[in-house]
Amino acid sequence: MTLSRKPLKGMRELTPGEKRIEDYIIKRLRVAGAAYGFEEYETPVLEPLDLFLAKSGNELAVKQSYNFTDKGGRKLIMRPELTPSLARMVAASGELIYPVKWMSFPVCYRYEKPQRGRAREFMQFNLDILGVDGLEAELEVFLVLKRIMNSLNASPGQYVIRYSSRRLASEILESCGMTEEEIAQAFAVIDKKDKIKPDEWEELVRKTIKDERNADTIISFTSCSDPDAPWLAEAAGGSKAYVEIVRFRGMLKDAGILEAQFEACVVRGLDYYTGIVFEVMDSGGINRRAICGGGRYDNLVGMFGGQKVTGVGFGLGLLTLELFLETYGLIPDGISGKHPADIFLAVYSDEERTFAVNLAEKLRDFGVSVEIDITGKNLSKQFKIADRKSIGYIAVIGPEEVASGRITIKNMSSGTKTECEISGIPQILADKNLCGEAN
Amino acid sequence: MTLSRKPLKGMRELTPGEKRIEDYIIKRLRVAGAAYGFEEYETPVLEPLDLFLAKSGNELAVKQSYNFTDKGGRKLIMRPELTPSLARMVAASGELIYPVKWMSFPVCYRYEKPQRGRAREFMQFNLDILGVDGLEAELEVFLVLKRIMNSLNASPGQYVIRYSSRRLASEILESCGMTEEEIAQAFAVIDKKDKIKPDEWEELVRKTIKDERNADTIISFTSCSDPDAPWLAEAAGGSKAYVEIVRFRGMLKDAGILEAQFEACVVRGLDYYTGIVFEVMDSGGINRRAICGGGRYDNLVGMFGGQKVTGVGFGLGLLTLELFLETYGLIPDGISGKHPADIFLAVYSDEERTFAVNLAEKLRDFGVSVEIDITGKNLSKQFKIADRKSIGYIAVIGPEEVASGRITIKNMSSGTKTECEISGIPQILADKNLCGEAN
Repeated sequence: MTLSRKPLKGMRELTPGEKRIEDYIIKRLRVAGAAYGFEEYETPVLEPLDLFLAKSGNELAVKQSYNFTDKGGRKLIMRPELTPSLARMVAASGELIYPVKWMSFPVCYRYEKPQRGRAREFMQFNLDILGVDGLEAELEVFLVLKRIMNSLNASPGQYVIRYSSRRLASEILESCGMTEEEIAQAFAVIDKKDKIKPDEWEELVRKTIKDERNADTIISFTSCSDPDAPWLAEAAGGSKAYVEIVRFRGMLKDAGILEAQFEACVVRGLDYYTGIVFEVMDSGGINRRAICGGGRYDNLVGMFGGQKVTGVGFGLGLLTLELFLETYGLIPDGISGKHPADIFLAVYSDEERTFAVNLAEKLRDFGVSVEIDITGKNLSKQFKIADRKSIGYIAVIGPEEVASGRITIKNMSSGTKTECEISGIPQILADKNLCGEAN
Repeated sequence: MTLSRKPLKGMRELTPGEKRIEDYIIKRLRVAGAAYGFEEYETPVLEPLDLFLAKSGNELAVKQSYNFTDKGGRKLIMRPELTPSLARMVAASGELIYPVKWMSFPVCYRYEKPQRGRAREFMQFNLDILGVDGLEAELEVFLVLKRIMNSLNASPGQYVIRYSSRRLASEILESCGMTEEEIAQAFAVIDKKDKIKPDEWEELVRKTIKDERNADTIISFTSCSDPDAPWLAEAAGGSKAYVEIVRFRGMLKDAGILEAQFEACVVRGLDYYTGIVFEVMDSGGINRRAICGGGRYDNLVGMFGGQKVTGVGFGLGLLTLELFLETYGLIPDGISGKHPADIFLAVYSDEERTFAVNLAEKLRDFGVSVEIDITGKNLSKQFKIADRKSIGYIAVIGPEEVASGRITIKNMSSGTKTECEISGIPQILADKNLCGEAN
């Protein structure tokens, strides 16, 4: 039998070069979160199906998920998102110090057709603030997002943080006399607005929302791109949610988050959002899928029988973020090809091997990454390996080096050779950084 | 419905404190691998069941695994180990530069009864060298293991790297006239040697291996703890595998790996090992499960119809390693309680919030991790939060600070207060490190 050489469609397989790009992104996400005091946690990939049925709804938990029954008869799901597990973990922790500020890098699973920016197995970055009712939590989450994009060299014109308020939308739809069920239906339709053409979407609204006045309201509301829009000010002015969104706009301005933009049509797909909702989008429109989506949720842990805990959080797709960075040429050149070794030690013959191995160990003790020949091939073949791996420095360990204890280090890009004692090697390799050479 | 607050039994759920301990370990594993030029890669959790049936055998792939049929009728498995996926990936990559030196941190799944050191969902550290036939590859892998244990402050007396040779064992069993099937059976029995009591094991050998002379051979062979043991020297002396193991012992000595010890009974459980096999064990015997197991495999990618690629590699369980470190008190105090924030900014009232938020942002730009109050509670409640989170420094932003631009930083452990300009804050926080204060 010949086995397939391909991973399953939509699965996450990364060569070292691809992994270095992902690590470049992960590092910046982690540093951005830590700058605000967020702490990392982890939850299982395998969860009881019930947890997601209760939290994520049928569509996500059943239709779009990998779920199965295990050997012990348990109905399991491979998590399609993280939030229900976070809620469970918070409910189980008696001793948490609020505000809880947590982040995680879950790998999640959805049984959907793989497309650009959408895989069946994907890594997310999740970040949540729990236990704070005020907009200060939303503001901090927006600051984290801005810092993430900044640290990845994205400029404000390339992306936008679009936000709205589910409460504001609910208020307006309620004031038309729409029932809770009709409002949920309306949200589902609004969520499709940017995914299809404008006229197709309007048709969909009128088809889904039978009452013409209600359909008009939805169309008028979702076209507002400013809390001051006359239609909106008239429809909602003075209401609690309206006052909140105007205040939030002011806070964003004070904090210098000019990338944030009110868009009434933002509602986000997940059922548990109740307040401010937001998403990060490519402003150029090349990447249509949100880089990040989030919002405020109330009472996320209530289902576990605990006290009420509100929160604000987001999930950010590493794949959509990477596509965005690629689009704007923001992935630094040479990351994927950068080999970890600082120096390659070529070994002249087996006679010098013990000396060379012990030298390599000493250098590693000094924090130098050393790749030493282990093939036993001739020197020219060893040089070829070092060259193909793009290792910046090379040194040959032969009889002379063993006898004298002096090593000649060759800089592979400039061709410069430097002879030194063994103890001087780390300094030479460190100097390359000071001189701004390849690292 | 009230949902369960517990994750499924045997699943991996880590609070921030637990995650910090895991991160402490992961970082040292990663640094040790990188010191030798190993590069990180990733493969999917979900794989075709066929791949593991072919590589890992029925026991692991069917009985001890989570496997199911997806909505598209595909028979899938949640990987119980990494190596088959590595083999597939290598077979698919046309352009690899040998020797390939790769490492990964896969989360793996086994449907087994959870016990001390054994979970159903667990993270491994895998490290492999591909494309090198000589023992120089084995030696490098042993050096990595020694460096890992060193970097975790384990002393040589606390652990042992036990090794043997499957080829040597095979030669000896073949020379008794045992068939391939009987040898496989013998390996399975030998693998149980350290898992049950000596007399129970001997009974098991005699029950499984019907031929008395063959059973005697197995018992004599597996009692050898030195290649020079008279029984072994007589039984195998001069054979290819015997010469190899003696040579390897010399190489280990030359490289100063005194923690390595020959134990003929080491065979490791996985079918694909063909040469040197090894494991890292707690020498104190408190942790009976191997911290790490590995060996040489030939022709791992042959099943994909590609050219022959040999390799040496290991899988190291992070859970067993953590238990070992705990046993010897090697997890540094305070890691789990260490909050990421360097300083807590208390906000006197909403009047100072914009100033405080912008100050926090400036500090973060300098690389300082800042937790700022977002609760709007009174100062004494804010202090309590900072204290409970064990944040080392605190500063209050009130009307005076806003007016003067001068901030007073309080060191929470010493009680010392320092007043400075905003631009001086990072220096004060950096000095704490120079002085060896809490970090």
